[in-house]
Amino acid sequence: MDKKITIAIDAMGGENSPLKTVEGIDIFIKKNLNNKDFLLNIYGNENLIKKEFNKHKTPDDYFNIIHTESIVSDEETPLTAIKNSKNTSMWNSIRSQVDGVSDISLSAGNTGVLLVISRMILKMMPKVSKPALAGLWPNQYGMNVVLDLGANIECNETNLVDFAELGSALYKSLFPKEKPLVSLLNIGSEEIKGTEVLKKAYQRLNLLSNENNFLFKGYIEGNNIMKGDSNVIVTDGFTGNVALKTAEGTAKFITKNLKESLTENFFTKISLVFSYFSLKKFKQKLDPSKYNGAIFLGLNGPVVKSHGSTDALGFYYSIDLCYKIVKGRLMEQIKSNLSHLESD
Amino acid sequence: MDKKITIAIDAMGGENSPLKTVEGIDIFIKKNLNNKDFLLNIYGNENLIKKEFNKHKTPDDYFNIIHTESIVSDEETPLTAIKNSKNTSMWNSIRSQVDGVSDISLSAGNTGVLLVISRMILKMMPKVSKPALAGLWPNQYGMNVVLDLGANIECNETNLVDFAELGSALYKSLFPKEKPLVSLLNIGSEEIKGTEVLKKAYQRLNLLSNENNFLFKGYIEGNNIMKGDSNVIVTDGFTGNVALKTAEGTAKFITKNLKESLTENFFTKISLVFSYFSLKKFKQKLDPSKYNGAIFLGLNGPVVKSHGSTDALGFYYSIDLCYKIVKGRLMEQIKSNLSHLESD
Repeated sequence: MDKKITIAIDAMGGENSPLKTVEGIDIFIKKNLNNKDFLLNIYGNENLIKKEFNKHKTPDDYFNIIHTESIVSDEETPLTAIKNSKNTSMWNSIRSQVDGVSDISLSAGNTGVLLVISRMILKMMPKVSKPALAGLWPNQYGMNVVLDLGANIECNETNLVDFAELGSALYKSLFPKEKPLVSLLNIGSEEIKGTEVLKKAYQRLNLLSNENNFLFKGYIEGNNIMKGDSNVIVTDGFTGNVALKTAEGTAKFITKNLKESLTENFFTKISLVFSYFSLKKFKQKLDPSKYNGAIFLGLNGPVVKSHGSTDALGFYYSIDLCYKIVKGRLMEQIKSNLSHLESD
Repeated sequence: MDKKITIAIDAMGGENSPLKTVEGIDIFIKKNLNNKDFLLNIYGNENLIKKEFNKHKTPDDYFNIIHTESIVSDEETPLTAIKNSKNTSMWNSIRSQVDGVSDISLSAGNTGVLLVISRMILKMMPKVSKPALAGLWPNQYGMNVVLDLGANIECNETNLVDFAELGSALYKSLFPKEKPLVSLLNIGSEEIKGTEVLKKAYQRLNLLSNENNFLFKGYIEGNNIMKGDSNVIVTDGFTGNVALKTAEGTAKFITKNLKESLTENFFTKISLVFSYFSLKKFKQKLDPSKYNGAIFLGLNGPVVKSHGSTDALGFYYSIDLCYKIVKGRLMEQIKSNLSHLESD
C-alpha cells in the first residue's frame, strides 16, 4: 500500500476557529469517505476540537488530534513570533513536517507569523533565492497560478526566475495534464518595456523556456491576467499583492452594485427568480472560497495559508488544495524544475 | 465677458478617426448649445473633418478647424517621435497652448508619443520633479483620482509627494466643493509596511497634510481603491498601471461571465426584460466611457489622453473632462498647491 497523504492542520487559526476549521475538515472527510489515501493531523485544543467533531458526527478514522495549549494571536508580529509562538498549534503543525509525520501544513492564522516560522522551521530549499507566496486566480478557462503575492516586496531577476520555476511546478502538480505557460507581469507587451530587473528576467526566462518545465510566453499586462492564455504569472510581491487586492476590490464593487440593481424594486426582484439558477452558476464559477488558499513555495515542505476570514467551505477548499498538491507530488516537481535551472 | 474655455483637439488620433472624434465633438456641442463659454480648436485633415461635421449638421460657431497635413502613426515610437511628429495634428494641438490660443489639449493618439512631445513642447513646471499620468476611477460614492498610471516606472519619495499635490489640485478642479483625501497605495495599512520609498513618502505627506490642500489618510490597499473613502490615490507608474489594467480585466471578466449567465436560456432571457432598467442603471454607473481620459499633469499646460479604442461617447466624455478641468482652474490649483510645497 502507498504511503498516505498526511496533512497537518492548525485548527486554531483565523476567525471563528476551531468551529469553522472543524466544519471544513468535516466537509472534506465526508466528501472523501471512499478515499483511504489520506490522514489529517489536527493541531489545537483537543477538547474544543472533539466537541465540534461530535456535533458533526465526523467519522473518526481519518484524523488524529494532537493537543497544543497555546495559539498564535492575531496581534503577534513577525518580529516577536519566533520567541512567542513555540509549541502553538501553528508551530507544531509545521514542525510535524520536519518530524516526518506530515507532508504539508495548513493554517488560517496570522500570515506574517506563518511566513516567518515556516521559513525558520522548514528552511529554504537549496538553490532557491527567495521563497514566494503563490495564489490561484480564476480565468476564462480554469485557473492561473500567480506569484509572488506579498512575501517579497523587492525582487531581482534571479528571484523572478525562481518564481517561474516554483510556480510551474505548482501548476504541474495541480494540473498534471497541462504544460505550464509562464508570463511576466509588466506594463506593456513589447520587449523594451519595464524595469531593468524585468528586462533581465525576460532574457533569462527566454533561455530557460523548454518543453519539459515551462514555456515562456513573454510579458503580460494586468488586463490579461484572467484571459486564460497564461497559466503561471510571475511578479514581485509588491505588484502581485496590489494586483490581487485590486482585483478583489473590483469584483466586490461590481457584485455589490449589481446586487443593489437587481433587488431594487418589485420587478427586478421577480426577475431574480427567473435568473436564479444562472446567477447561481455564475456565482459558483467566481466563488472566492474556491480560490481560498495561498501556497508558500521554496521551503523544504509546502505550507498553505487559508484566508483568516474564510468560512467552513473555504477552509474545505484549502484542505482539498493541500490534498491535490501532495498527490501531484509538488516537492518532486520543484526539485526537477530546479535541476533544470542548475543545468543552465 | 470672461475669456472662453479653449480646447485644442487632435481629431486624427485613435481608431476610426476623425469619424469618432468628430461625432464626439458633435455630441459635446449639441449638449452645450446654451453655453457660450467655450471654443474648440480642431487639428487635422480639414476636408475629412468638414465632411463629418456636415453629416452630423453640427452648428459651426463653436469650433475652428486648423488644417494639418500629417498625423502621428500608431507605430511611431517615443524615440523617433520628436523628429517625425512635427506639424502633425497632435503636435500642433499641443503647440497651440504655447502660442496662447488654447487652454488644454486632447488626443486619442499614440500615448508614448503624446507624453514625449507634450513634455518637449510644454516643458515641466518649475518645482515638479516628474510629470504624472492621472486617471479617474469609479468608487462607491463618485470618483477617485489615481496617479501615476504609467508615465514613470520608477519613483522616489519626492515624485510621490509631487503626485499627491498634482492629484489633489486635479481633484479640487473637478470637485470644487470637496476636500481631497489623499492615500498612498501599499500592501498593508500599518506604518511599518512597504518599501523605503513609501515609508519616506508617508512621513513627508504626514507633515504636508493640511486643511487647504489635502488631508493625508495614510496607506491604502488595492481592495479599498473603489471603497470611496479616499479621493486621490498615489502610486508609482508601474504599480498604478498594473492596478488599473488588472481592475479593467477583472471588470471585463465578470461582466462577460454575467452576460453569458443571464442570456443562457429562455427563462433567463425573459428575466432580463424585468431587470432591463436596473441593469441599464448599473451599466451606466460603471460605463467605462465615462472614465475615459487620463490627464498628464506637471507640465506648463494640461494634456488629456483619450483611450485609442474609445467610441464617440467616450471621446465626448474626454472633451467634457477638458472643459471641467479648465473651468475648475486646474493650473492655478496646481500652482497654489506647489507653493505649499515650497513653504514647507
